[in-house]
Amino acid sequence: KKPLTIDEEAYVQGIRNGSRLHLAKAITFIESTVSDQQQIGQSLLKRLLPFTGNSIRIGITGVPGAGKSTFIEAFGKMLGDEGFKVAVLAIDPSSSITGGSILGDKTRMEELARHPNAFIRPSPAAGTLGGVHKKSRETLLLCEAGGYDVILVETVGVGQSETIVRGMVDFFLLLALTGAGDELQGMKKGIMELADALVVNKADGTNEKLAKKTVAEYKQILHFLAPATPNWTTPALAVSSLYKTGLDTVWKTVQTFQHDMQANHVWQNRRKEQTVSWFKTMIVDRLYEDFFSSIDKKETMANLEQMVRQEKVTVSQAVEELFSSNSKE
Amino acid sequence: KKPLTIDEEAYVQGIRNGSRLHLAKAITFIESTVSDQQQIGQSLLKRLLPFTGNSIRIGITGVPGAGKSTFIEAFGKMLGDEGFKVAVLAIDPSSSITGGSILGDKTRMEELARHPNAFIRPSPAAGTLGGVHKKSRETLLLCEAGGYDVILVETVGVGQSETIVRGMVDFFLLLALTGAGDELQGMKKGIMELADALVVNKADGTNEKLAKKTVAEYKQILHFLAPATPNWTTPALAVSSLYKTGLDTVWKTVQTFQHDMQANHVWQNRRKEQTVSWFKTMIVDRLYEDFFSSIDKKETMANLEQMVRQEKVTVSQAVEELFSSNSKE
Repeated sequence: KKPLTIDEEAYVQGIRNGSRLHLAKAITFIESTVSDQQQIGQSLLKRLLPFTGNSIRIGITGVPGAGKSTFIEAFGKMLGDEGFKVAVLAIDPSSSITGGSILGDKTRMEELARHPNAFIRPSPAAGTLGGVHKKSRETLLLCEAGGYDVILVETVGVGQSETIVRGMVDFFLLLALTGAGDELQGMKKGIMELADALVVNKADGTNEKLAKKTVAEYKQILHFLAPATPNWTTPALAVSSLYKTGLDTVWKTVQTFQHDMQANHVWQNRRKEQTVSWFKTMIVDRLYEDFFSSIDKKETMANLEQMVRQEKVTVSQAVEELFSSNSKE
Repeated sequence: KKPLTIDEEAYVQGIRNGSRLHLAKAITFIESTVSDQQQIGQSLLKRLLPFTGNSIRIGITGVPGAGKSTFIEAFGKMLGDEGFKVAVLAIDPSSSITGGSILGDKTRMEELARHPNAFIRPSPAAGTLGGVHKKSRETLLLCEAGGYDVILVETVGVGQSETIVRGMVDFFLLLALTGAGDELQGMKKGIMELADALVVNKADGTNEKLAKKTVAEYKQILHFLAPATPNWTTPALAVSSLYKTGLDTVWKTVQTFQHDMQANHVWQNRRKEQTVSWFKTMIVDRLYEDFFSSIDKKETMANLEQMVRQEKVTVSQAVEELFSSNSKE
């Protein structure tokens, strides 16, 4: 079989000149599980790496129903109208079992998708950590090379996904609903301490008064918590994605954050640490994958795990057993 | 050289009959970095494993200065006086650079150490994660086999130590000082959400009024946070380790917790999950250790980390490079 080849230079130029088609195809290469496609993706990324790093990376999370997609659509359109190029790494709820809107899957962020300054890349929530793909970081870099000024990374509040997204963005935004007390019970532990801004959504109509009360409650809680970013005071804000109020304040907050954190180098240092820590995570993943690549090893592991669970062996003994069976192969 | 041998049966019987000397020596075997000593430790642990699991395991944390050692001494003595056997895995501050009392290193928990029902095992804070030794879990099991009813595991609030201790205890107690707002700034993020009880220490003298106010403040914050243990409401309590007030309430809280969590099986399930997760952590540690056992590999890693940090290569490429240099060896 002939190996897959592409005109790399055409891709690099296409992406740099804002071709959505080339960008989308490059992301598909990066995400591919087929070896030669992956290699093309990596090769493209390598060539595009010098043109990355110039965007603001914003993570957006919130419990299902917090209005993530309506917020991203309204916020993204506002930025697009102001002339910013906006890329969204979005969750595709159609394949999700954990949530997303049941109605209107097809119309999710439809208006933003048609905006000339926007690019939306949905990832299936199924098989990923709350919509965060293993390759989301690399997708983000490709978007940056494509000249996008703002990258919005959406995640749904399940499992470890927030920590992963926090580890790839500059600014982390937690979307909340009115009624802090009730809602916090449903939030993942420690999530508030990852946020650089807490935004109470749906502050409109009869809900507006309650939203203001909720903002006050969150302010009080945030006062007691260590901020996610040193030398930054995490604000609580109210927005209406429906009536587009408060969105400009969110954007001003992000800009102030960028200005201050670049001045004190927290921004630059965080990015370096994020990259190194991603490197280390990938090493551990790879070691684990390689070690458990044989069916025999997986079976031994399953048996030992069962014995450990039933306290039939000590953990140290089980580890010894697992690694000694290695040398027998 | 003749291999080291001991009379294992004498150790097993000694430990089970409450010999502190045998227990202390067995722990030294477990903690040893010498291979044949380690093996003796593991062999003893294996024989003692059937006699473990019957204690209440309590983790105790707090910022330096929160009064961990005075609390543990007062709490341990109260339990000892009531007839409970108490083991303490304590931090030895003499070798610590992060804290502990500067005055009175020698007299730390001196009274408790002399109590007939108590056993104290100090671990140096240096070279460990806030006093948590790699073998702390195994030490804990040896103490259980020695018939100790309550095991107190002390940790100082730095790095990942709380998460590790939370992963080996049934009940996690966070010691705090008066003035919640100021203090929380110094606490590690998310620490409050690991706690099964928040105990405000030094609620005595002129401090008593402030302590009550602090308890009320913490109650308010805890109200908003998800509890560390499902179906448990994390209480905030005030104690004076100096005047020994409130300690009985802490103990009653622990007992209620044990009763309720054993009834709904949260207790048993958590222990099983803790053991399995410990097993998995040890596997990853071992894989990492084995992979980086050669000096060559360490050098390659250091170089690649530097290149990743300076964005000279993509992370994926660096991982490929690291693992391909493996096959060349």
